[in-house]
Amino acid sequence: MTVTRRALLIGLGAAGGAGAMFAAMNVLGLAPGEQRSDFEPPRPSDFALRGKSAAKVVILGAGVAGLTCAYELGKAGYDCTILEAADRIGGRNLTLRGGDQLTETTGEKQIARFGEDVYFNAGPARIAAWMVTLDYCRELGVPIEPFVNGNASAYIYTSGMKAPVRFRTARADMYGHLSELLAKATSQGDLDKLIPSSDKELLLDFLRQFGDLGEKTTYEGSERRGFAAYPGVEAGTALPPPPTLSELLGYRLAPALTFELSADQAMPMFQPVGGMDSIVTALADAVGRDRIQLSSPISKITNLPAGVEITHAGGTIKAGYCIATLPPHLMAKLPGNLDPAVLAALGSAQPYSAGKIALEYGRRWWEQEDRIYGGITETDLDIGRIWYPSHGFHHRRGLMIGSYNFGPDADTYAALKHPDRLEKALIQGERVHGPRHRKDLLSSVSMAWTKRPHIEGAWAYLPPSSALREPAGRVYFAGDWLTHLVAWQAGAFESARHVVTRLHDRVLKEETE
Amino acid sequence: MTVTRRALLIGLGAAGGAGAMFAAMNVLGLAPGEQRSDFEPPRPSDFALRGKSAAKVVILGAGVAGLTCAYELGKAGYDCTILEAADRIGGRNLTLRGGDQLTETTGEKQIARFGEDVYFNAGPARIAAWMVTLDYCRELGVPIEPFVNGNASAYIYTSGMKAPVRFRTARADMYGHLSELLAKATSQGDLDKLIPSSDKELLLDFLRQFGDLGEKTTYEGSERRGFAAYPGVEAGTALPPPPTLSELLGYRLAPALTFELSADQAMPMFQPVGGMDSIVTALADAVGRDRIQLSSPISKITNLPAGVEITHAGGTIKAGYCIATLPPHLMAKLPGNLDPAVLAALGSAQPYSAGKIALEYGRRWWEQEDRIYGGITETDLDIGRIWYPSHGFHHRRGLMIGSYNFGPDADTYAALKHPDRLEKALIQGERVHGPRHRKDLLSSVSMAWTKRPHIEGAWAYLPPSSALREPAGRVYFAGDWLTHLVAWQAGAFESARHVVTRLHDRVLKEETE
Repeated sequence: MTVTRRALLIGLGAAGGAGAMFAAMNVLGLAPGEQRSDFEPPRPSDFALRGKSAAKVVILGAGVAGLTCAYELGKAGYDCTILEAADRIGGRNLTLRGGDQLTETTGEKQIARFGEDVYFNAGPARIAAWMVTLDYCRELGVPIEPFVNGNASAYIYTSGMKAPVRFRTARADMYGHLSELLAKATSQGDLDKLIPSSDKELLLDFLRQFGDLGEKTTYEGSERRGFAAYPGVEAGTALPPPPTLSELLGYRLAPALTFELSADQAMPMFQPVGGMDSIVTALADAVGRDRIQLSSPISKITNLPAGVEITHAGGTIKAGYCIATLPPHLMAKLPGNLDPAVLAALGSAQPYSAGKIALEYGRRWWEQEDRIYGGITETDLDIGRIWYPSHGFHHRRGLMIGSYNFGPDADTYAALKHPDRLEKALIQGERVHGPRHRKDLLSSVSMAWTKRPHIEGAWAYLPPSSALREPAGRVYFAGDWLTHLVAWQAGAFESARHVVTRLHDRVLKEETE
Repeated sequence: MTVTRRALLIGLGAAGGAGAMFAAMNVLGLAPGEQRSDFEPPRPSDFALRGKSAAKVVILGAGVAGLTCAYELGKAGYDCTILEAADRIGGRNLTLRGGDQLTETTGEKQIARFGEDVYFNAGPARIAAWMVTLDYCRELGVPIEPFVNGNASAYIYTSGMKAPVRFRTARADMYGHLSELLAKATSQGDLDKLIPSSDKELLLDFLRQFGDLGEKTTYEGSERRGFAAYPGVEAGTALPPPPTLSELLGYRLAPALTFELSADQAMPMFQPVGGMDSIVTALADAVGRDRIQLSSPISKITNLPAGVEITHAGGTIKAGYCIATLPPHLMAKLPGNLDPAVLAALGSAQPYSAGKIALEYGRRWWEQEDRIYGGITETDLDIGRIWYPSHGFHHRRGLMIGSYNFGPDADTYAALKHPDRLEKALIQGERVHGPRHRKDLLSSVSMAWTKRPHIEGAWAYLPPSSALREPAGRVYFAGDWLTHLVAWQAGAFESARHVVTRLHDRVLKEETE
């Protein structure tokens, strides 16, 4: 019996606590509390040692999952063909540049008019450092740079506010008030049933620092809030006094103040230099462009006794195996002979709506005037959030995501034509940025993922433990929708690795039978 | 009477609160709550319109303050000469690369053996977005990139811990426990005297989100802590259970958990691409290299009836004015005819100690194994903190700051020779990183700022309102030590602007008398 490193570490963590796990990790040369992938790509020698050869595989979809399957199988010499419905690779990994056309399922067309070096990551746009996506960037030689996900200088705006407030100011005020409240309760003995008296001084000491309370243990503002005029030769000038806790609670700041605390969203995050599509470009180059057939939507999937037959716009292709990475809710509608239970499982996927509106400006006023270099302004308006660019700092032109919204808000915008989406988003954005939000605007493009041909959704949720992780005959399924990383490229990568491992094991076994 | 924009906004903020200020700022085209500099560089037309001409100015020191004075005065045609004691420009803005030599005041020598493209910012290394330093980067065309100051994946290590803990884990646990405590106190009615009953539900709702408490409003861990194995195809595997609040308070996490909340240190921060010295290089190029005399330590400063006379290693130079940017504690010892009160004020400056140790590795194990891409591990060990590089991600080699410490800790290291500093720092670093901290080490350099010739201190503190902001005859003083931004390059820039404005006003007035 072999024990994977992962299993060993999980076991040690459960049995011996952090100390034992750290000690073991040091022995193994690993860091504390961090995953190491057990994935081993297929190798030519896997066959050579057995006197076997690789199989022919047809892959449906040239998004991250499909390209990664072809890339990993290709390492062992599998003969892969990728069929892609669209006229470009990448799927939801979509970076738009000047001249790119965008046609929606309704036939509505947009053309991106962006200037040179300006790009719009219409799909995924940030990568957490723990995600396997960074390993692929490293392996493929795709240079990365920090993506500014949280920015203390960005704003928070909720409808109850008279004016937007800087993240740093709202955070300082909330931490200050909460610390004062807890400190008072501690000092007055209200918590004596809840904490041992020996902890009281330690707790008060922590709260004084956490809330930047003075000696009196009351919150009366803090330099952490920022300044009306920042320090220089003279001392800084304070902002108007902080709101009361009541006012602050009324602003409902929790979503804005806590989003960056999650494991997925914590700083720092990363992006490929020059656009997210650097990843799919590098994958496609490694796979070989001749293996990818564009503009080939699938019309039928048929399991044969010893293979598969795929019918597409350009003809029919037979192979030993198929890996299908299309969106599940679209795959559910395809003719063929997939088991009705499989089709029902695919059909149970819930596509989810998200939209982005790119605003290109001739002047980076958010850097020069707001001193916002990257990051996100969270709002409770229907535009959701505003993203400032994390690259090209100090360049003349810049592209802001003027709206990134989800669910019903995204549906509302999707139902409009582009000029109306733009106008609606500008009106809301002006509530945050004032008239500057409209001045210097050069061009714009909007993406409504529910209206993207061959995709029709930003992502899709399946019931937790889906049977679709098992192959349907010789058809395997792959995609973020099959993982616990829905909506992340990392989900597509992880799913591809999983399917490649399973398929390769089967090929090695089948050939020996 | 003219009112500066700054004064107007400060007045509005005080009188009308945030709403009035925001409205006024929108009218002015400014962002809420943000400083705009009133600095106007001298222009040739300032003289032309009066039929006057620019003066000759000798500037002592080619650090950021001195170079900026020459740069700004040069815009109006002032004839500036910079005398620099060292054989290179920059002062504390010092970036070391392979081949660079470092000689300490004691004569001890080090040579940097770094590989190509590897650099070490031995002095300033990060810039806050609100600081004027970024304006100079923009004006001078120095490209910038994010500096990862806070990293949820980095560690915190204090001596009471069995093993280092990830920042994200410690933060989630502390926020969770504090939220639970405050929620319990609220629910039990302990806070009824402190908050109106109408706020109770809003507060509980905030705390549930802030602490990631469940429905029961108790903290039982959170996915924000990270995972023993991160989610992928399978769900993530939880870390060992969180410590109790008592244990957590015993770790004394406040310094590590709060440093990034300050206005100076909040994310995102920035650095010039390729090394901090890009700034002084660009300034020197704009000033003209022929105006900078290196290896010219000052030996005497003399005010003349209508000018100044400066004696230096290469001779004597006369000019209409002098701007002295040397460290105040060294300037206090210079012969000449400065007023004894001025010398006493200079001598009252308290130089402060700081040190950095650069560790160059042949492998970026902190990225590959720890998944730490930039950021800082805070410790209570004598190494202070460990900085991971914010650039060159995924490159083969990388340079980590293995120690950045202050005060007595920095003095302890400064007292050692480099090999002993290195060994001491490695022993401490191993407590954080285990044996990997020593493996793959290629080279190292240490900087003890108190032993840097002609500087002898990391920075210096003066009593609050110093008379040194006034000129001593025709000698002006400039440097971060004269501002409320001590230890920041922004202080040097702001001070230079202040002195340039004052000197230029005087020149314009004097010539008319």
